[in-house]
Amino acid sequence: MAGSSPCASCKLLRRRCAKDCIFAPYFPPEDPHKFAIVHKVFGASNVNKMLQELPVHQRADAASSLVYEANARKRDPVYGSVGIISYLQNQISQLQMQLAFAEAELLCIQMQQERALANQHVIDIHEPSSLFCATASQAFLNPST
Amino acid sequence: MAGSSPCASCKLLRRRCAKDCIFAPYFPPEDPHKFAIVHKVFGASNVNKMLQELPVHQRADAASSLVYEANARKRDPVYGSVGIISYLQNQISQLQMQLAFAEAELLCIQMQQERALANQHVIDIHEPSSLFCATASQAFLNPST
Repeated sequence: MAGSSPCASCKLLRRRCAKDCIFAPYFPPEDPHKFAIVHKVFGASNVNKMLQELPVHQRADAASSLVYEANARKRDPVYGSVGIISYLQNQISQLQMQLAFAEAELLCIQMQQERALANQHVIDIHEPSSLFCATASQAFLNPST
Repeated sequence: MAGSSPCASCKLLRRRCAKDCIFAPYFPPEDPHKFAIVHKVFGASNVNKMLQELPVHQRADAASSLVYEANARKRDPVYGSVGIISYLQNQISQLQMQLAFAEAELLCIQMQQERALANQHVIDIHEPSSLFCATASQAFLNPST
């Protein structure tokens, strides 16, 4: 029990907040919406069980992640956190594609420079491979053109 | 009710599976673990409420996302789906950093090529900026060296 007020959970559930209340450290009375949302999505009894099954030092993180998940479900009742996961996975695919393109482009330039060094002569910028690299880097840096 | 068997939910809850059972289309009897896990994490009553609040055409996606979230919570009882979100966000930060490096590198090469074109002469590969670009692309392509 935090101070003289019952914790947010006991207040919502209208029960006495015991000294060893499992919710009290993670759901203080000043922040009632945190418990209200996990109660709505997971149910107080399930949250209680999930916290009980964990060692004390992991319970704060578990309570925070349950609040995050419950808020995600409130914002997106169809996909919840899974909608965020899907969005992030798409972003990763796009970044990987852009990076693969940049790697190919840099490899192309590197090979060209190595060949020039091996021949101990200067690079003719009108050489076909130089032009390819220049065009590709232009397309990478200005994808809209 | 799917065929003559009660759905996985009604079987677990030991109740009659009505013709219009809200769970039956998403929790068939052949796949009992799907309902068992959402029941353990969210509770049958909350799942029922969450499905009821959605239009019928969105319920299958909602049921799937609840199963996904519940499985994530089973695998990682502390962080659940939030652990996956955190992992993906780290991956995005790393990719963005690599991409920013590649963009800077390509911009450097592009500027060098444009300057050479403007001067209408060939690039000396021993010129300081060429060497910087070559070194940077080497570091980008072989980050361990």
